[in-house]
This record gives sequence, structure tokens and C-alpha cells, in this order.
Amino acid sequence: MNRRQFLRQSAALPLLPLAGAADPPLRVDGGRLNGWLAAFDAIGRTPGGINRVAYSAADLAGRAFTLDLFTQAGLAPRLDAVGNIYGRLEGSDSSLAPVLIGSHVDSVTDGGNFDGPVGSFAAIEVARTLREQHVRLRRPLDVVVWQNEEGGTWGSKFAIGEVTDADLDAVARSGKTIREGIGLIGGDVSRYQSAARSRGDIACYIELHIEQGGRLDRAGTQIGVVEGIVGIRWFEVTITGLANHAGATAMDQRQDAMLAAARFTVAVNDAIRSETGPQVATVGRLVASPNTTNVIASQVVLTVDLRDLRPDVLTRFYQRFEALAREIESSTGTTFVLKGLVDSKPALADPQVMGWIGASAEALGLSTARMPSGAGHDAQEIARIAPMGMIFVPSVGGISHSPREYTRAEDITNGANVLLNAVVAAAR
Amino acid sequence: MNRRQFLRQSAALPLLPLAGAADPPLRVDGGRLNGWLAAFDAIGRTPGGINRVAYSAADLAGRAFTLDLFTQAGLAPRLDAVGNIYGRLEGSDSSLAPVLIGSHVDSVTDGGNFDGPVGSFAAIEVARTLREQHVRLRRPLDVVVWQNEEGGTWGSKFAIGEVTDADLDAVARSGKTIREGIGLIGGDVSRYQSAARSRGDIACYIELHIEQGGRLDRAGTQIGVVEGIVGIRWFEVTITGLANHAGATAMDQRQDAMLAAARFTVAVNDAIRSETGPQVATVGRLVASPNTTNVIASQVVLTVDLRDLRPDVLTRFYQRFEALAREIESSTGTTFVLKGLVDSKPALADPQVMGWIGASAEALGLSTARMPSGAGHDAQEIARIAPMGMIFVPSVGGISHSPREYTRAEDITNGANVLLNAVVAAAR
Repeated sequence: MNRRQFLRQSAALPLLPLAGAADPPLRVDGGRLNGWLAAFDAIGRTPGGINRVAYSAADLAGRAFTLDLFTQAGLAPRLDAVGNIYGRLEGSDSSLAPVLIGSHVDSVTDGGNFDGPVGSFAAIEVARTLREQHVRLRRPLDVVVWQNEEGGTWGSKFAIGEVTDADLDAVARSGKTIREGIGLIGGDVSRYQSAARSRGDIACYIELHIEQGGRLDRAGTQIGVVEGIVGIRWFEVTITGLANHAGATAMDQRQDAMLAAARFTVAVNDAIRSETGPQVATVGRLVASPNTTNVIASQVVLTVDLRDLRPDVLTRFYQRFEALAREIESSTGTTFVLKGLVDSKPALADPQVMGWIGASAEALGLSTARMPSGAGHDAQEIARIAPMGMIFVPSVGGISHSPREYTRAEDITNGANVLLNAVVAAAR
Repeated sequence: MNRRQFLRQSAALPLLPLAGAADPPLRVDGGRLNGWLAAFDAIGRTPGGINRVAYSAADLAGRAFTLDLFTQAGLAPRLDAVGNIYGRLEGSDSSLAPVLIGSHVDSVTDGGNFDGPVGSFAAIEVARTLREQHVRLRRPLDVVVWQNEEGGTWGSKFAIGEVTDADLDAVARSGKTIREGIGLIGGDVSRYQSAARSRGDIACYIELHIEQGGRLDRAGTQIGVVEGIVGIRWFEVTITGLANHAGATAMDQRQDAMLAAARFTVAVNDAIRSETGPQVATVGRLVASPNTTNVIASQVVLTVDLRDLRPDVLTRFYQRFEALAREIESSTGTTFVLKGLVDSKPALADPQVMGWIGASAEALGLSTARMPSGAGHDAQEIARIAPMGMIFVPSVGGISHSPREYTRAEDITNGANVLLNAVVAAAR
């Protein structure tokens, strides 16, 4: 009888410290986990992809499905005041801060089924595996599913107390305000401040997620040990020109907001690529008015998404984009107004948590690579109040936020196993 | 008693030919005409401008207002099978083909109150003036208000028999199909072919319209005598890339449809301006998918509006745009599909009709300039079956298809007076 077998048979006994990750590692039920994901794929599936944007009917259906998984796992789910879903597996010492694991189940518009659900369902599966295998941890294990990650990590921002009254009227992609959304998903917005956690409340936070870039997939590496999450700046650019007749207005008499927007989009791309490095900038959203074939556009509103791990690089490129806007407004006779929407700082992973993740992967015989996360995650918020780590699994072709997003079942199982053993190490 | 006074008193007598435009010219009631326009401004007015897109509720309200003006003018309005509104002032010889005058009352999205209504209401006022002043013409005078001009001169296209069954399912800006729209405005789509007129049915067609360019306004010229209407090519460009995560996808791993669309928009503008000349090209409409800040765009659909009086120039630029699309698709890893939407040939005005218009303006003491029309008009369709002429009045600042579109009351009255006397000359 090794130590783990002993623990399984003696859950009621005083806890003995578990060995390190070098012990024969535990394993989740990968078939069960992937079965949940396959069933979940039907929720919010449209011809354009998965559409479970926060607070939509499909998001509500996805949350109901998820709550049922919590219940099946014996996690007795509860909602905090903003609709984050929590469930606890008790440890032997209830006075200790819990290990927290989880992710989200909302999606972008026309997205895929893996970004979020993989980490959420794996966290549930990890807790269920520990319960079923009678592994008693010392610390409590909390599983969380954050609300509205894709709209700007709202659930985790609430959890670190970073949301104010004024923010509640922001409009989510579903068309609902955050305030309305919280009501729809069963929260109580009047008590939103009660969702905030403090430093010390959480022993550490570990999130499993698909990579969303192509690095692991291209290299054939099984597990990414995340070093940190890039800072993100989102800003909205409102370009105002003058609506006029597309046939009767000479080319040199125009104040064409569409042309100005196009020049800016090209200039942003050329600027970000003019320096070697991992920095990225994207114009992903653009709305023109009146948006009619035979009318010169009077206004375009577009957004820029700028990311990098280095705060100084973010600042420098933002200033460069501002200068480009000034140049283009004068050359096109339009006006540019820039408005910041999101400014999230880079968040570094905790070395000890990274160590547990790496050791867990090693014990499982999985290849690893240390890497930054170019995508934002709830983990970047929680990093401000607790040690944080993330586990990445490969996304085929590096595709995400797309109906073509796909992660192989074996990689999902690998990731869940790494999470399981990292939790065991963290909750000792 | 001059000849005109004689005619007023002898409407029942056999017709005597009217003198030329050198006679003291007739004049409309400009206050009444401008009063109708002021009242009409309330219909479809929104914070963004006038919205009377064809087949919308506001278009229906605008048509009801217009029908009432026909009735007040004693024109006994009738609808043809596609919903064009006609009213007749009988001439002394009902065996003769009528002179036809009119315009449209639908608008673009977020447009103004002058593009269309000026010519429609002036035509009604001309007929009413002739009736009130007991001026008996030899030819019948038909007043027409074409349906759905802004969506692609649908009413006048029906009138020249250029619409087929397949076209009826095209979707107008209101979201209604042409088929549905015809039902909504009181037509009978099953008989749409009965709306077609033949060569010889119309003695000539004269349309008064605001210029929609800034040439008359900048030069301080009162009347534009239109020499022809430019040919228009509209084509839709569907650019397909690959949706992917805006943070996690390296800049050199992207197939960004938004960036490709921006490069194409800039390239079209640079190309059209690379040659001196009046040719114009516009990207006025652009729809991105999924149109989300943190997702690289998978698809953009945009339209190009290309115009010139010279058919060879249209063809040459269209081919150049196609070549640019091929270059950009290979440099961005996207695919471009071009689809023709509209291909209307340049339409020349009839020299005799231009002569009547010029002589009429001269008799009224108004300054004139001969000019092409950069905007498309119903007149370009009717030119294929009847001699056509157009009268332009200045649009302040050359602004149209905009809530800032404005034409001074005196200029509208001038235009209506020119139309009136040109009709008298044409209907002799």
C-alpha cells in the first residue's frame, strides 16, 4: 500500500502530508470529461459557431448545464452576488484558505466550444476525481466558473473588488448591461461588493485553458506552463467625417470616415510589425455609419486591441497609434477621438505554482514549455490577490475564438491530469 | 392680350402653338412648394437624419403625404403595378404621348429632405400651376413619383421593363424584398410587367433634382443643365480570412479579413486618385464578422461604388480594382470574391430637352452651367426609352445623402420655374 492507497482508505483519519508530484500521479476520468464537453457543444451552437455570449439565453443554458455538473460532482454549487458559480470540496483543515481552480463557460460571438469550458469542466472533474478516489486534501478545494469572461473578465474583476457602481451600466455583447446580466444569471447586483475576495482568502488559483496560439501545436508540446499574462489595452476610435453623395462628390472634396478608418487600420498594423517582438495589435470591430453603398461614411467606430507582457511597450505603441490618428485626421479632413476601454496590466504567474504545474506534468510524462499567455484570462485578475498559475493545452492550428477552435480529447485529459496533481501539491 | 393670356382664356378652343421660352415665362407658387417640403421634413426625421428608406413605415407615410398633394393638385393619382405614383394633366390632344416629369420621395439611411422630394413636389406644383393658370398644353402632362430610387432606381427600372422575376427577391435597405415592398406600397407584384413603358409612350422625361455635388454652389450658378448621367458600377467584395484570438495569434500567423479590407479600401482610393479626371470610387458600406474587439475578423463584406461618364474608364478601373484584390489576397492570406451588384451605363441627355431647359432658364434670367450628373437618377433609366433632360439646383456645400443636405427655397423655386417653362415648351 503506497501513501495514496493509504489515503484513499483512510479519509476519516487525520491527514498525512501527501508526497510530492514524483509519486505515481492521480488521473481524472478523461472520457467523462470529454463527454461533458461533447454534450456542451450543442448549447449555443449556430451555423456561425458557438454563441454563448454572457447573459444570452445560450449562456443561461450553459450555466444550467454547468450547475448540474457541480451537483453531480457533489460540489453543492452556490452563486455569489454577481453570479460566479462556486463549489467546495472540503479539506481536512477548514481553517485554511482554499485552493481555487476554474475558468468560464461564456463564449465570444461565433466562437468555439473549448475556450473556457475545458478549464471549467476539468476543474469539476478534478474535484469529482478527488472525491471518488477518496483523496482527502488538507486545504479546501474551491471550483469556480466566472461569469462573463469574454466581455472583459467581469466575474473575476468583481472577485478582486475592481468593479464600481458606474461600471454596472456597461453594455455586454448580449445587449444587456452588466447590471441586467447579473439579475438574469441569478445574482443580486445590490450586493455585488460581497463578491470581492481579499488577499489571503485564496491559497492559490490555477486555471487550465487552451493555448489560443499555435505554439504548443506547432512544436508538438503537450503542456504549456504559463509565465504570465500579457497586459491588454483596448481603445475605441471614433472617426467623424461628413456624409455625402458617393457619385457627386469629387475625390478631393471628401471627408471620408471609412477611408480614414482604413488608413488607420493599415497604419496600426504596419506600426506593430515594424519592430520584432511578440507585441500584437488588432482592429477586430468596425461599425460604419450610415453604412450605405452610395454614401460617403460620416462616422466609423472601431476598436484596437493591443497586447504585450512589457508595460513600457504598451505605452509606447499606444502613443504611436495616437500620433498616427493625428496624422490621418489631418490628411483626410476627419476627426479622431480615442477612448480607453480596457487597460489591464501584465500579470506574472507565481513561481511556486509554476513549479507544481511543471512537476505534475513531469510526473505524468508530458512534455512542457514555459510561455506567456497572449490572451487575457480571469487568472490575470486573481493574480492581484493570490498566487496564480495557468496550464495550457494545445489548440489545433492555434485557432480559437472561431468555430474551427479544436483541442484533442487526449490533450484535454492531459491538462486535467496536470491540474489534478498540481492541486494535490498545492493543497497539501 | 398676349398669346399666353389668350390661352388662359381659351382652354376649350383648339390649341394654338405656344411661343418659345422668350415669352414672359410662367411662374409656380414657390411659397406653396417650399411649404410642402417643410411639412414633409417631419416624416421619417430621426436624430440621425431623414430615414424614409423604401418600403419602411416612413416611406409609406411619405407616399401618403405625396398622394394627398396629387389629389389637391387635381391630378387624380393612380398607382401602376409596382407602386409608382402617376397623375395626369390632360392636354388638348389626348392622342399624343405625354411629357413626363417627376422624381422620388424615398431617402437613403440618415439622409436629407431635398434629394427626391424637390423634384417630385416641383412636378406636382408645375401641374397645379398650369391647371390654376388655365394653361392648356397640347400634350398630356404626366407627373410621376418613382418608388425606391435610392435602392437602385427600381421604379424607373420597372418602367423600362428591366426587372425580371429573379430580381424581385432582392432585399432592400428596409429589410423587405422588392416583392414584399411592392405589396406594402399598394402595388400588385404579379402584374409587375404591366408597369413597363415602351419607346414612343413618353414624349420626353424631365427631372428636377438637387445637384448633390458642390459645383453650382461653389460657382454661385443657379441652374445646372445636365448633359448626362454617369455610369455606375456597384460591386460587393467578400473577403474571407480566419477568425482567431487577437492576443494569442502572432502577427505573422494571421489571416485578417479586416486588415485586408482596409488595405483594399486604401488601394481603391489611391488608384482612383492616381489619374486626373472626374472618376470617383467609394467604399461606403462595410460589415465585419464576428466584429468583436478581441477576435481577428474572419470575414468582411464591403461594397465599391465606381462612377464615370466614360464606359472605358469604368471598365479599366474595375479591372484595376480586381487586380488590387488579387494582390492583397495573396499578401494577407485571405480570399476576395467580387460580385457585381449594379452596372448602369452612362445616359446622355437629349439635346432638344437640354435646349428647352436652357432657354427656360434664360427667359427667367437665371445663370446656367452645363454639367454631368455624378449621381444616378431615375432619368438615366428613362433615357433608354425616351428623350431625357435634367435640371439641377444648388445644394449648399455640395452636401447630400446627409442630414446636413440643404437647398435654399429660392433655388427650389427657380428650379420649379425652369421645369414649368421647359414643360410648356416640350408639350406644345
